[in-house]
Amino acid sequence: MKPSIPKGTRDFSALEMARRNYIFDTIKDQFKLFGYKQIETPAMENLSTLMGKYGEEGDKLLFKILNSGDWLKGVSDEELLQRNVVKLTNKVSEKGLRYDLTVPFARFVVQHRNELQMPFKRYQIQPVWRADRPQKGRYREFYQCDADVVGSDSLNNEIELLQLIDAVFAKLGVNIVIKVNNRKILAGIAEVMDAADKLVEITVAIDKIDKIGLDNVNEELRAQGLAEEAIAKLQPILTMSGSNAEKLDLMTDILKDSETGMAGIREMREVFDGIDFLGHKAEVEVDLSLARGLNYYTGTILEVKARDVQIGSITGGGRYDNLTGVFGMPGLSGVGISFGADRIYDVMNQLDLYPREVETSVKVLFINFGGAESRQAMKYVKMLREAGVPAQLYPDNAKMKKQMSVADADHVPYVAFVGENELRDSTLMVKDMATGEQQLYTPENFIDFLR
Amino acid sequence: MKPSIPKGTRDFSALEMARRNYIFDTIKDQFKLFGYKQIETPAMENLSTLMGKYGEEGDKLLFKILNSGDWLKGVSDEELLQRNVVKLTNKVSEKGLRYDLTVPFARFVVQHRNELQMPFKRYQIQPVWRADRPQKGRYREFYQCDADVVGSDSLNNEIELLQLIDAVFAKLGVNIVIKVNNRKILAGIAEVMDAADKLVEITVAIDKIDKIGLDNVNEELRAQGLAEEAIAKLQPILTMSGSNAEKLDLMTDILKDSETGMAGIREMREVFDGIDFLGHKAEVEVDLSLARGLNYYTGTILEVKARDVQIGSITGGGRYDNLTGVFGMPGLSGVGISFGADRIYDVMNQLDLYPREVETSVKVLFINFGGAESRQAMKYVKMLREAGVPAQLYPDNAKMKKQMSVADADHVPYVAFVGENELRDSTLMVKDMATGEQQLYTPENFIDFLR
Repeated sequence: MKPSIPKGTRDFSALEMARRNYIFDTIKDQFKLFGYKQIETPAMENLSTLMGKYGEEGDKLLFKILNSGDWLKGVSDEELLQRNVVKLTNKVSEKGLRYDLTVPFARFVVQHRNELQMPFKRYQIQPVWRADRPQKGRYREFYQCDADVVGSDSLNNEIELLQLIDAVFAKLGVNIVIKVNNRKILAGIAEVMDAADKLVEITVAIDKIDKIGLDNVNEELRAQGLAEEAIAKLQPILTMSGSNAEKLDLMTDILKDSETGMAGIREMREVFDGIDFLGHKAEVEVDLSLARGLNYYTGTILEVKARDVQIGSITGGGRYDNLTGVFGMPGLSGVGISFGADRIYDVMNQLDLYPREVETSVKVLFINFGGAESRQAMKYVKMLREAGVPAQLYPDNAKMKKQMSVADADHVPYVAFVGENELRDSTLMVKDMATGEQQLYTPENFIDFLR
Repeated sequence: MKPSIPKGTRDFSALEMARRNYIFDTIKDQFKLFGYKQIETPAMENLSTLMGKYGEEGDKLLFKILNSGDWLKGVSDEELLQRNVVKLTNKVSEKGLRYDLTVPFARFVVQHRNELQMPFKRYQIQPVWRADRPQKGRYREFYQCDADVVGSDSLNNEIELLQLIDAVFAKLGVNIVIKVNNRKILAGIAEVMDAADKLVEITVAIDKIDKIGLDNVNEELRAQGLAEEAIAKLQPILTMSGSNAEKLDLMTDILKDSETGMAGIREMREVFDGIDFLGHKAEVEVDLSLARGLNYYTGTILEVKARDVQIGSITGGGRYDNLTGVFGMPGLSGVGISFGADRIYDVMNQLDLYPREVETSVKVLFINFGGAESRQAMKYVKMLREAGVPAQLYPDNAKMKKQMSVADADHVPYVAFVGENELRDSTLMVKDMATGEQQLYTPENFIDFLR
């Protein structure tokens, strides 16, 4: 029987890891340049931390861990025979795998509130798990890369996060557009539609416009009980075009009677003024149809789309005013973004945006001739490594053809030979694999050359 | 209710992560210099992959994941009422969290055998999970850092792994001794004890000598049914002292009638000749009482102890000849080591071996004076980041004292001020936090200065 791995999970080969590391390292470098500090939380959280945070659907998608030892101990025969799966799950499992990095972060902030210096800028790059139906581009284990600031309601944080997104994708060479909206504007729209109580239903419906189209969104709004008059009022907003300034001017007109809506517009203007003053490479666009499904957002919301690949949003985020409230610490404002590493990986692969050197492992491969020659080669390998040059001796005294084929497969730029003559003269013969030229060096000269 | 995390798991704060990253990055850099390539495997493996690989005790320590949906579906009332936990576990759970990186690696090699270039040098740094009773220094989630070569039986690999260990701990500044033995020597000892069939029992008992002492090891050997005569033959080996050469000479004498034992000694000599020729900083010591519990080792075995801290082994490894046999690919030889990152972390903490700069996050903190001044400061922050200098503006226009306290807490080396005058003159005032001196710069000059 051929061994396999669970559905929806992946092994990453050396080449895949080299490419993924290029993405993760690029994001990490920017996180650090921007002053975000890394934290990590455990893969397993108490189910009391996770349950009820992602809606009923989310609860079902949590991977639950069977209690250790006799997990049936506290369950009566009667309970077993009732076969109430939800109730029994509670009895046989008290831990689950994290579903995202946001809830564990909120739990972390509350648990360590006395040790944290506010405002607290943290980043976190770890896998998450969801028992979702696996399909193309959707995995049961995938990485999230989150950056958040909590304890500050300054819009400078929004401006900075937009700069961060701009910097990351510029470094990666991915052509993007950043779409920005504000939940207060959405609330204002619901107000002027006379449907403030339907804000959630309206945002959920609007959120689907890219996927299902305008007509179906309107259908869904009707199904949610919104009046035709209200839906009519929404149409100019859903179909609005023009420059960012034109859109904001039109909205100012539509929302003039909603205090919340006007506050949202003021925030949007400040954020756009900020990033325009600082300059940005990516296009940043007011998108009033952007809603984002997550209900904890309260201010700015944003999403990133790749220009050259058909794929969902590759980064998203926004401001929340009460993420930690559910853990007993109300009123802590924060704003954060999450890079969708796996989708970015798909985009980078499709466009083949990796620098060539990502694929090479060692810079120098020494051919193994056995005996004293290979011993001497190991000495040179050691010298190279100590000088910071990745190098290795082929471990076995195998056929030359086999050894050279490894150099080819690994895109090794230099192959070094220490034969009888080189051993005697304390030299090494080096073949440049790109040009085919050979050159004799002393080890010191070769290190100088590589520098 | 204060939120908490599961027993035996940990949150890592920004400072702890900075320190851990220093360790992981040091190990990773050496892995790369030595030509090992990174792979990753999923956190969840099929239980069919994991079960039966770590002994009965190990099976119990696996974290098992409850099947999704109606996990009771395939279980009859009768089976439920029988309450056979092992049998029921099989029915309600088909996945588990990985227990180490070795078994997933073996599974990976077999599954991807057609894509892998042999010999294959891989490294892997990922967490593993064990439902062990938590205690000081023992966690339910912890990281392993493994490097292995498979597909080569050359002793050059052993020599290289010893160099790798030497290089990592030299970089970390941890004073170590590497203890080396060979399973063939242990097999030879069992032979000359006339107890070849008791090899496992003998190695398990010997392995405990550091923990329980010589007398208790002898007691355990008796309990395992070994004759007094056999135990007596073992004593000179268990209490042997002297130089490596003296120990090997004595063993050559004791094992002269055992072919396997003599092969082990030849291997040991070749490995020691190799590392001595290449040079090493750490002491490397023949330790014939070293057995290592894991039964898959077949040749060289090694273990690393910290000299200046009382703690168990901080790195271990060895050669195995049939790791992939259980997955249907027999006869693949390999050798590997595993750095115990969490124990190394404990050692580094106790000895405080971290460079100071590990603890700083940004190099420059700009004080926020609000208005156009803070906007201009953001521009300078952007310039610094683009020049590769981690920098940030304090997000809020808070009291100076509060802002400066963050600079202190974060060990920020430079605090920058853009006030009314600096805004007008396109300059910034910089305070060196170590000396207290202030200096006026243009942004370009400041960047030059930092370089």
